[in-house]
Amino acid sequence: MKSGKKDNMNLKVAYIGGGSRFWAMNLFRELMLEPRLGGEMRLYDIDKKAAEDNAALGNMLDEISDHYENGEKQPNNDRIKNNWTYKAVDDLAEALTGVDFVFISVLPGTFDEMESDVHVPEKYGIYQSVGDTTGPGGIIRALRTIPIYEGFAKAIKENCPNAWVINYTNPMTVCMRTLYKVFPEIKAFGCCHEVFATQTLMCNALKDVLGIEDAKRDDLVINIVGVNHFTWLTKAQFGDIDMFDVYRKYIEKHPEGVYKYWGEPSMEQVKFNLFKRFGVIAAAGDRHLSEFIPGYQYLNSPEQVKDWDFFLTTVKSRKEKMARQFGEREKYLNREARFRVEHTGEESTRQMLALLGVGDLVTNVNIPNYGQISNLPLGAIVETNAAFRYGSITPLLAGEIPVGVRSMVLRIVDEQETVVEGALERDLEKVFRAFVNNPLVKIPMDKARELYKEMLENTKEYLTMYDLSQIK
Amino acid sequence: MKSGKKDNMNLKVAYIGGGSRFWAMNLFRELMLEPRLGGEMRLYDIDKKAAEDNAALGNMLDEISDHYENGEKQPNNDRIKNNWTYKAVDDLAEALTGVDFVFISVLPGTFDEMESDVHVPEKYGIYQSVGDTTGPGGIIRALRTIPIYEGFAKAIKENCPNAWVINYTNPMTVCMRTLYKVFPEIKAFGCCHEVFATQTLMCNALKDVLGIEDAKRDDLVINIVGVNHFTWLTKAQFGDIDMFDVYRKYIEKHPEGVYKYWGEPSMEQVKFNLFKRFGVIAAAGDRHLSEFIPGYQYLNSPEQVKDWDFFLTTVKSRKEKMARQFGEREKYLNREARFRVEHTGEESTRQMLALLGVGDLVTNVNIPNYGQISNLPLGAIVETNAAFRYGSITPLLAGEIPVGVRSMVLRIVDEQETVVEGALERDLEKVFRAFVNNPLVKIPMDKARELYKEMLENTKEYLTMYDLSQIK
Amino acid sequence: MKSGKKDNMNLKVAYIGGGSRFWAMNLFRELMLEPRLGGEMRLYDIDKKAAEDNAALGNMLDEISDHYENGEKQPNNDRIKNNWTYKAVDDLAEALTGVDFVFISVLPGTFDEMESDVHVPEKYGIYQSVGDTTGPGGIIRALRTIPIYEGFAKAIKENCPNAWVINYTNPMTVCMRTLYKVFPEIKAFGCCHEVFATQTLMCNALKDVLGIEDAKRDDLVINIVGVNHFTWLTKAQFGDIDMFDVYRKYIEKHPEGVYKYWGEPSMEQVKFNLFKRFGVIAAAGDRHLSEFIPGYQYLNSPEQVKDWDFFLTTVKSRKEKMARQFGEREKYLNREARFRVEHTGEESTRQMLALLGVGDLVTNVNIPNYGQISNLPLGAIVETNAAFRYGSITPLLAGEIPVGVRSMVLRIVDEQETVVEGALERDLEKVFRAFVNNPLVKIPMDKARELYKEMLENTKEYLTMYDLSQIK
Amino acid sequence: MKSGKKDNMNLKVAYIGGGSRFWAMNLFRELMLEPRLGGEMRLYDIDKKAAEDNAALGNMLDEISDHYENGEKQPNNDRIKNNWTYKAVDDLAEALTGVDFVFISVLPGTFDEMESDVHVPEKYGIYQSVGDTTGPGGIIRALRTIPIYEGFAKAIKENCPNAWVINYTNPMTVCMRTLYKVFPEIKAFGCCHEVFATQTLMCNALKDVLGIEDAKRDDLVINIVGVNHFTWLTKAQFGDIDMFDVYRKYIEKHPEGVYKYWGEPSMEQVKFNLFKRFGVIAAAGDRHLSEFIPGYQYLNSPEQVKDWDFFLTTVKSRKEKMARQFGEREKYLNREARFRVEHTGEESTRQMLALLGVGDLVTNVNIPNYGQISNLPLGAIVETNAAFRYGSITPLLAGEIPVGVRSMVLRIVDEQETVVEGALERDLEKVFRAFVNNPLVKIPMDKARELYKEMLENTKEYLTMYDLSQIK
Repeated sequence: MKSGKKDNMNLKVAYIGGGSRFWAMNLFRELMLEPRLGGEMRLYDIDKKAAEDNAALGNMLDEISDHYENGEKQPNNDRIKNNWTYKAVDDLAEALTGVDFVFISVLPGTFDEMESDVHVPEKYGIYQSVGDTTGPGGIIRALRTIPIYEGFAKAIKENCPNAWVINYTNPMTVCMRTLYKVFPEIKAFGCCHEVFATQTLMCNALKDVLGIEDAKRDDLVINIVGVNHFTWLTKAQFGDIDMFDVYRKYIEKHPEGVYKYWGEPSMEQVKFNLFKRFGVIAAAGDRHLSEFIPGYQYLNSPEQVKDWDFFLTTVKSRKEKMARQFGEREKYLNREARFRVEHTGEESTRQMLALLGVGDLVTNVNIPNYGQISNLPLGAIVETNAAFRYGSITPLLAGEIPVGVRSMVLRIVDEQETVVEGALERDLEKVFRAFVNNPLVKIPMDKARELYKEMLENTKEYLTMYDLSQIK
Repeated sequence: MKSGKKDNMNLKVAYIGGGSRFWAMNLFRELMLEPRLGGEMRLYDIDKKAAEDNAALGNMLDEISDHYENGEKQPNNDRIKNNWTYKAVDDLAEALTGVDFVFISVLPGTFDEMESDVHVPEKYGIYQSVGDTTGPGGIIRALRTIPIYEGFAKAIKENCPNAWVINYTNPMTVCMRTLYKVFPEIKAFGCCHEVFATQTLMCNALKDVLGIEDAKRDDLVINIVGVNHFTWLTKAQFGDIDMFDVYRKYIEKHPEGVYKYWGEPSMEQVKFNLFKRFGVIAAAGDRHLSEFIPGYQYLNSPEQVKDWDFFLTTVKSRKEKMARQFGEREKYLNREARFRVEHTGEESTRQMLALLGVGDLVTNVNIPNYGQISNLPLGAIVETNAAFRYGSITPLLAGEIPVGVRSMVLRIVDEQETVVEGALERDLEKVFRAFVNNPLVKIPMDKARELYKEMLENTKEYLTMYDLSQIK
Repeated sequence: MKSGKKDNMNLKVAYIGGGSRFWAMNLFRELMLEPRLGGEMRLYDIDKKAAEDNAALGNMLDEISDHYENGEKQPNNDRIKNNWTYKAVDDLAEALTGVDFVFISVLPGTFDEMESDVHVPEKYGIYQSVGDTTGPGGIIRALRTIPIYEGFAKAIKENCPNAWVINYTNPMTVCMRTLYKVFPEIKAFGCCHEVFATQTLMCNALKDVLGIEDAKRDDLVINIVGVNHFTWLTKAQFGDIDMFDVYRKYIEKHPEGVYKYWGEPSMEQVKFNLFKRFGVIAAAGDRHLSEFIPGYQYLNSPEQVKDWDFFLTTVKSRKEKMARQFGEREKYLNREARFRVEHTGEESTRQMLALLGVGDLVTNVNIPNYGQISNLPLGAIVETNAAFRYGSITPLLAGEIPVGVRSMVLRIVDEQETVVEGALERDLEKVFRAFVNNPLVKIPMDKARELYKEMLENTKEYLTMYDLSQIK
Repeated sequence: MKSGKKDNMNLKVAYIGGGSRFWAMNLFRELMLEPRLGGEMRLYDIDKKAAEDNAALGNMLDEISDHYENGEKQPNNDRIKNNWTYKAVDDLAEALTGVDFVFISVLPGTFDEMESDVHVPEKYGIYQSVGDTTGPGGIIRALRTIPIYEGFAKAIKENCPNAWVINYTNPMTVCMRTLYKVFPEIKAFGCCHEVFATQTLMCNALKDVLGIEDAKRDDLVINIVGVNHFTWLTKAQFGDIDMFDVYRKYIEKHPEGVYKYWGEPSMEQVKFNLFKRFGVIAAAGDRHLSEFIPGYQYLNSPEQVKDWDFFLTTVKSRKEKMARQFGEREKYLNREARFRVEHTGEESTRQMLALLGVGDLVTNVNIPNYGQISNLPLGAIVETNAAFRYGSITPLLAGEIPVGVRSMVLRIVDEQETVVEGALERDLEKVFRAFVNNPLVKIPMDKARELYKEMLENTKEYLTMYDLSQIK
């Protein structure tokens, strides 16, 4: 008998950005928890040493890991197992040739560039709570990212045109749009867990308002429309229960907000305020949401941010966090610490399984708009639910972005389209047209030009493919 | 802790048409095979005695059943169990009050009416291979059915507006459209296994052309567009394999067709011919497909039907089959025979589980067009894939009906819309406008009127809500 | 002062098919009645002698013409004048180079080919009342026409890409689609006066039903949707008066139909019947309308045609009419008869004037669907109203084709699309797929193939660009 | 013979706001220049005395008028004539009963209210150049206007449901939306001459760049998309000449802008800048355009406005202008001055003629979106071209709003929809949700609430239908 199915234990996977310190470990965890998947994982990174370290770590996982569930160490580790051979590779082609899946999770530039992205605009009164998706920071970051993704798309077309490509890098929408523009037949999708947190918030609301305690994130059936980090629920239900009613009561009951730790404490006040204003449930963290909205509303000043009970993530804090993480991998490699394996909330293995023909899965995903959102342009990268089936991802019909928020969503679609076009054409003036129209850039156009030039200059080491003298 | 979820073992279900001899037994089988569902099943039928017999049978299932798998009797019956209490009820309201699910599977009129539906047109040179969906027979049957469904919709609105309503009766589209016209908020969907057979055909093709033997129906990921019994696959894949290529080769390899037993032997020649003509895979049996297409192409005469290697199902054969089935229930009730429990190919329990929050399921279903098919009118009942999740059915984006077949699909949509409107308005002239435009009615309009009158007259016992004297 | 406008008295116009005996004379008449237009008219025809005769005639018009109005000879001829220099040219390039307008009105093949188109199908029980647009005859005629138009499109692209191209040849839709497929930037539109007759019919109805006598065709404001010869009015008004009410009463008042001379007497019964069936006003002659509808309804047999009070135009009658016209041009050239100049009902000069910036004009026209009809595919050639302005034609928003007729319109759109594709690809099998699906071809597929082969064989002299042996 | 047409010399017209000092006189002028129209004009105004004065003036026009053309007095007045009887009426019903046309041109509130609308926001750093369409001023003005228009719509429905209603009042879109929401069958359209000025600008560009001097406004064929005062040309041509090229060169040639007197001198720099940014031609004055765009771009401060070479129209200047006009009517009534009759650039009489069946006219107009703009919501009041014909207005297919500006247009659509809904529901909180999202309101939300309350309080005399205490 000839089998038509892939052997799920002999998969070939490329991991671009495979030297990562954080995301790689979460992937290791999920893979060890999934006995139905295994094979060869090729780690590619511009920092080869980091990839090698991760490969070494990957290959010793069986020895150093402990199994946890719901925070508790399990009596033995017989339900976790490494089914993968990890190896670091020298170049992209070697990583990609003939693979079934490609993960991409890279940092475009370093935290020094990000420091310019996020903090230089502050001199102009422009505050960004994240700075990696939109706003002046997100746009400059996109300029660094797009040419890199242009290269990825070409290499994938060349070496593994049939592979499933899973992107985790921000700015998500811009990365995805680049992949599809350069290689339209690519089978790529972008994953982000931001929406999951909103499902969890709903579970909390259910408990708080109705006393229902056994709702799990997956039970919250939602309809999502929007673009990554600026997504909206137009329907949310727990069985027969309309979560819009529950959410309304939850908000009324908590005028002071509800506590949420997004790296730092936050009170979901932006999200609640958006619901009161527009009647739709925003499905991302407040730090992301606020960046898509006119800057004087939530991000006018550090004081205003404090009033809305969220915070500005500084690049300094990111650097500190990285420093803290720095020794972690080494400890594992030196067997100075045990590797804790527990579910991370990522869905990558569930998605892989569904694509390999093991069960249906419906989850949110970033892919081009084929009509799933009826009032956004076709081709724009949108985030909605999609069905993952054997060899196939099909969007669910998501319908319209509602009145009130739709023009803000359309605005970011146009910004990102212009930025991708401009970057692919190496036309910095075109990109500036998007820059100046960004809602956080609440300064006159001449000032905006000054800022743009300064930000380009600061990060020019990663912008060598552009002619910076274009910008006068 | 308060649970928010329904107790899947304490469900309340109404079964309209619960005196059925055939479909009821299949439902019994599926329910016995699903340990996660149980509760109370209320059987309602205009033949009360039949409902009582089925209730009695249902309640003794544990005693009389044997478990089979893939046709083989299992060593013991410990994997089957009846978790349901069956009871026959006197009226619709009693059946429906407060239920979670409603099954509807009824026969509008008797086989005597169907005899007129199917065979009277033959006097005019009009041949129908089924006669229950479209064609003169399907239209007259719709006239009987629509007022009954009008009553169902009102009763559901009154007694269980939140219940999930699952329809199995033909004409499927007409039944569903009536339910939604009369009670637009109804949570109804229509199920038909016709498409499954096409997935199985694909599995055969895979084996025959590529030697792949382990493909199961569910592995064939398809995109379906159309209306019930006239559905089309615009995409079909087995993992990376494009089934359109495989299907083309399969057809070339079998110029004489491939054998399929649809009650009688058939060779799939209509389906293959449609593929050659339109480049799309028809996803229903040849007897159904041919009824939607100009009558001189496949159904011009009994000889032509024979040439295309399918057949005309006579009502005589239906009556004979019914007679054969007649003693079956009695034998079980008298413990003269064992009840064989094996999977029947129906998806009802999988759908119920998904709607109760146990896993995601993607399958084909008949619901109103919310935009899932972009080039059919909104509101028309269409058949596409949909995602079943906890408390929710959402269509997958299905896209366009392709050139070539789209005008034929649109025609049947218009026919069915006109018939439903006409029947609800009790306007027989309006219905005649659809009748005369049916592609099987390949006779001049005056002859068509003669035929229409004769068919109405023959079945007038079930048409008392209309004024037959309208038709001159 | 530099003028930006074209000098309307120094226009250059190419007339392809300029040897015509009938249409040319009507053009002469309209041009003599329009003092605001003049210049050079280049006549091109494969029958060079005929073009020369027309040129000679054109140049002597001032001498031989008499002015008529409403059928009455005017006391003097001072309101008519020839402002044009006519010349016959040798080739297409010479005709086209640098012109402002191109008229195209050609006969693809001769009446002998048309004899096969129209009458050979009668052997198979297929009757065609015109046979030049659809039906087996229209499709074979399209096979002759499309390669010719392919050549026109290329020559226009080469020699006068900015010219306005006005087509009068049938099959209109097929000619237009070919022009746009081969040269998408072409500024072409197709004119047909069939709709005008329906406006005139409305005027008659106004008089008959309401006693209103001063309504002129142009006063009847209509909304048209459809494809050429199968167009429908979805709105018709005379000021505040809804013409749908008037038309309904008119039909009721005249159960025997109303007399209309379309070359032979006719009673508009098909048109009236279509209104009763579908509630929409058909806007073409009965002979055209009936050809788009299943053949057993109006064209089942010569007897049925007689019952519906219209007629089958024989090619014999066309030949006789041509013979009668034959001496006409010669008489004028020999000054044996006076040339009668009176309005012909054509709109060519009004359209030219509007395009040259003299006033706005709204009229019906055949152009690609840019969305003016919301439920037909983009790009299909449709007939709707459009605004003619200086240098510009813009469709009016026409909306939807109504339920009931929309599937028949979509069918012809698909037929014509398939025929154009097939002919451009020289793929006779593809064309056959359209042929067999034509609603007049009410015969089994094997018989249809026989007929197709015979019709191709009969007209092979004009089908040399195809490989006829393709069809087995 | 019974005539079906209206007698254009016996029209009945209602003029709401008929006491006007400015617009009334322009109407008088246009009517005197159009000999094909006449009848009875009923002037209705809340200032009855003003209406009586206008009526008296209207009835003496023949005696006191002089004819001018292109600024020059004509030798005699035989081409002007008053064909109208003017009369002031007491109430709306009397004005409207049985009329053919209704003009509406009113001032909601007085200039004192407008002073608050325009200048109070300046205390918050918000500058408005007009303040009657959007921005805080436009929104508060809308609150005064919508209940008035609600009354108009009801009175029209009651007294003259078939009349053509022509609105000139601002905020145009809000007025029109109210009319259609309250009486959906109303035959209303809104006229604004703002676009005409852009056509004139094109004529200047033609002369300047290409030396073409004979282009008239009407020769510039354009495609318009947008909402009133924020309209865009996506196509503009003068015959074969693409005006986008000409416009680009014109802008390059005039880096300092071009002079335009819009009440005060202006240099079209905003318009030119928008073209450079978005590649689309903005078709309104800079003072209007800038109000739809984030406030820090063109209206950040009086200095910035000066830098962009346009100006802020103060209400003081409006009051002064009114004072200057104040004695004018009295002088005519006292025969102390002659009434100068010359074309004013308004199109009202051309539109009336076309609607009465005298010729086709294509011009821009504000009506609901029936699909003429494909990417704006149906029902929104949009400005595009439409064809005026006998008894009918039909939009031309206008297509998409282009990338870049479409999200700004969608935003104003949503603002206006929310404001109309809020005002009709008397829900000031809902209106505030639009207020705070206005791009000129570049202040935090708490400050915005302060401003809103102050503006409501200032104008409360005209807001008695609302409960101002709703706003905390």
